[in-house]
This record gives sequence, C-alpha cells and structure tokens, in this order.
Amino acid sequence: MKRLKGIVAYDGTDYSGFQVQPEQMTIQGEIEAAITRITGETIQIHGSGRTDAGVHARGQTFHFDTKSTIPIDKWRWILNNQLPASVVMQSIEEVDPSFHARFDVREKEYRYCINNVQVPEVFRHRYAWHIRYPLDVKAMRQAATHLIGTHNFTSFCSARTHVENKVRTIYDVRIEQEGTLLWIICRGNGFLYNMVRIIAGTLLNVGEGKLSPNHIPSILVECDRELAGKTAPPHGLTMWEVFYKE
Amino acid sequence: MKRLKGIVAYDGTDYSGFQVQPEQMTIQGEIEAAITRITGETIQIHGSGRTDAGVHARGQTFHFDTKSTIPIDKWRWILNNQLPASVVMQSIEEVDPSFHARFDVREKEYRYCINNVQVPEVFRHRYAWHIRYPLDVKAMRQAATHLIGTHNFTSFCSARTHVENKVRTIYDVRIEQEGTLLWIICRGNGFLYNMVRIIAGTLLNVGEGKLSPNHIPSILVECDRELAGKTAPPHGLTMWEVFYKE
Repeated sequence: MKRLKGIVAYDGTDYSGFQVQPEQMTIQGEIEAAITRITGETIQIHGSGRTDAGVHARGQTFHFDTKSTIPIDKWRWILNNQLPASVVMQSIEEVDPSFHARFDVREKEYRYCINNVQVPEVFRHRYAWHIRYPLDVKAMRQAATHLIGTHNFTSFCSARTHVENKVRTIYDVRIEQEGTLLWIICRGNGFLYNMVRIIAGTLLNVGEGKLSPNHIPSILVECDRELAGKTAPPHGLTMWEVFYKE
Repeated sequence: MKRLKGIVAYDGTDYSGFQVQPEQMTIQGEIEAAITRITGETIQIHGSGRTDAGVHARGQTFHFDTKSTIPIDKWRWILNNQLPASVVMQSIEEVDPSFHARFDVREKEYRYCINNVQVPEVFRHRYAWHIRYPLDVKAMRQAATHLIGTHNFTSFCSARTHVENKVRTIYDVRIEQEGTLLWIICRGNGFLYNMVRIIAGTLLNVGEGKLSPNHIPSILVECDRELAGKTAPPHGLTMWEVFYKE
C-alpha cells in the first residue's frame, strides 16, 4: 500500500462541487470512478477541502491509498485518459504515508475574478463575475488591507456553517489588474464557508462606492454576517493553490 | 421601419448551432426571443451564415428590420440585458435598408484553436482541441500555403452539402502560435460546409507526420472527400469576423 498526492485543475461549471453527493456529478466522484476503472480498487480520495457547486480549481489537492503497481510517472497520463476534459490532473506523486491533504495544509490561495467592462468577454463568462460599471480599484485595495491579519471572520462566513472557531489568519488580500479583469487574490491559513465569495461581494460594494474602506474593521469586530456584502457568485472563484507543512 | 446590423459573440458549447431549429437551443432563437421581449415584434434575424452545434463566434453578423423607436445607441445595452451570458452583442448599428448580412459578405475569417501540450489547460477545454503530442508546425505551415488561392474544395467539404459550386477563393491560411495554442487562421470569400474543420483535421495529419505537405495539391485536384483528413471537433472553431462590400 502506498499513499499518492494528486493536484487537479477543474472547470466547476457543470459539477455540484468537489465532494461526493448521491445522484450528483462531483469532482471527487469523477476522480474516484476513474481510479476504480484503472486499478479495480474501491478507494476514497481526501481533498484539501471542499469547493462549492460552480467553483473552479487550478490546484486542488488530494491524497489516496492504493495497492496498484502502476509506476508513479505513468499515473498522471493514465488518469487523465480516464477523466473528462473538464477535470485535468496536473501532477501525481508518492508521499509519506503520514501525509494528509486536509490536516497538513499550511496555507491556501484562492482567486476571485471580476470582468469589469461594459461588454463582457464571452469566453470568460464561465470564469469571471461580470460587473458592467467601472469599479474604484483604489478604494477596494484600501479595504482589502483591513482584512489582512488574524481576525474573527464571523461577518465573512455563511450563517450555514458548523465550524465553531471562526478565527483565521489572512496573509494577503490583494487586487491585480489584467486588462479588464480584476483578480482578488486571497492567501490564508484557512478559509471559512463562502469566505472568499463574501470578501469579493464586500469589496464590490466598496468598489461601487456603497461602502467606505474604513468600515471594514468595524464589520470584522461586530461579528455579524448581515454587515458584510452579498456572497459573490461561485463561477468567479478558483481554488488556486494549496501549500503544505514541510 | 429600419434595418439594424448586429455583431454578436457567443460561446456555442450549449447550443445546437446558430440557426433556429424546433425544440433546440440556438443562438438565433435566443436573439429573436430577446428582441421580441424588447419590442413586442415577431422578427426574424438573418445571419451571415450558419455555425454548427458547438462552434463559437467572436464576430457573427446579422441584420433585422424593426419599427422600434429605441435610440440606436441604447440597443446594445438593452439587448445584452435580455440575452444569456453566453451570447454577447458587440455592436448594433443602423444600416441602409438594402444591406444583407449574407448576400453582401465580401470575406470571412475563421480561427481554429489547437491546444498542443501534454497536460491541457482546463479553462481552454471548451474552446480548443487538445492534441497531446508535439506537432510539426513548420510542415503544417507548408501544407497551409497550398490551400491559398482559388480551388475546387470538394475534398474539403462535407459530403452532406447541397451546394453545387464548390469553388472558393482562400486569401490566407496561416498558423500563429500563442504559448501552447496553435491558431489556424483562415480567410476567404466563403467557406463550404465543415471546410475549416476539415482543413484543421488535414493540417493535424500533416503536423503528426501522417501526411506530407506536398500531397495537398493532389488532394485538391482529386475532388474526393476521402482523401482529406477527419473533420476536427466543433469546439475548436470560432467564427472570427465577417467583412462586407462597401
């Protein structure tokens, strides 16, 4: 038995999220079914965390255990041959049997993409949130700096969550412009349910002039989901990269 | 009554092509329904030509007649508000009542996109044909030059066509590289059914070393569809631009 670590990119448009659910198309379901076709084993993969329906990934990470004797350098090729075009393995490597894709996470990076232009680019419509009116990026950047650090992020977490401890450390929230695209780049030691999408929705309010950047600290302190912005739609969000403890 | 000319971009993934068909999602159907919601008129739009199921467009062009008094500079905005995110009007202008989007075409440009890399970019999977093994782009370019000029393109036309005259003038077939993407750019006075996709499939055979560039002239002369390559899949094709007579 050996433990393998996989990094996978996916277009989440047509999936009900990462995690297996009965009767639903899921990323985990596609990957597990492909591995079963290859090795004959019934296995379960363990992701670094879930992604919601419609959310994409560039570097979602998972591990699984297998008795297969397939050489490690053949795995990516064989698995990609079995996966649909919307799910693409980036790498597969053997890791120490103690490695855990969820428990060993040190840092995660998410990117939220806004296409800020009057007439949207049609080939971005599945991967970016279209906002027609020009946003005040300078104000959004000011607001973003207030989110960096260790805070209780209750105001930026879906009320439907079951997690008790809502304190997280955010290392960076920055906005990069690429033509008409605005990328909200978030790095932290962990993110609560819908947290990046609520950050994006709140920064949108700032960019539209509906909310002052100076209000962000009090929104954090109040621990009230009602004070932050709406949850931005899932299709603008991409799980970018997962970093692990050495 | 006035005649309007529209330029529209679309993601053809989820559509049964441009032209209206009963019980099918089509681009023409979406646009006509949107105009009816706006003006109350039952109108028919006339495209520059059809595109097949799954084919995309950056600059498909059409015309229609309307009695609406909506100011011309409001039309694009109003129509985009009524259209799904996968269909985006680029421009709408008033034209002379004698203008015809199909009969007045002087030149069309299509682009076929190949993602030539071992591990494909997942966010390109709807818009590019993934070819895993490195292609001989120099040989493909040699082959492409033989297609330029006025030829009978029977060998590069679906056998299911009803068109009698299969002579077309191709002004340019060139290949541009953009990272791992190969763009096959075709410009001509008109294209037969599946012609660009058969050109792409034939150039693929050349790029794979299965066909010599020097065989293209005899494939043209023989007028036999069996001699050219397979029809490349629709999702790599984009109708890029339509040019009109002055």
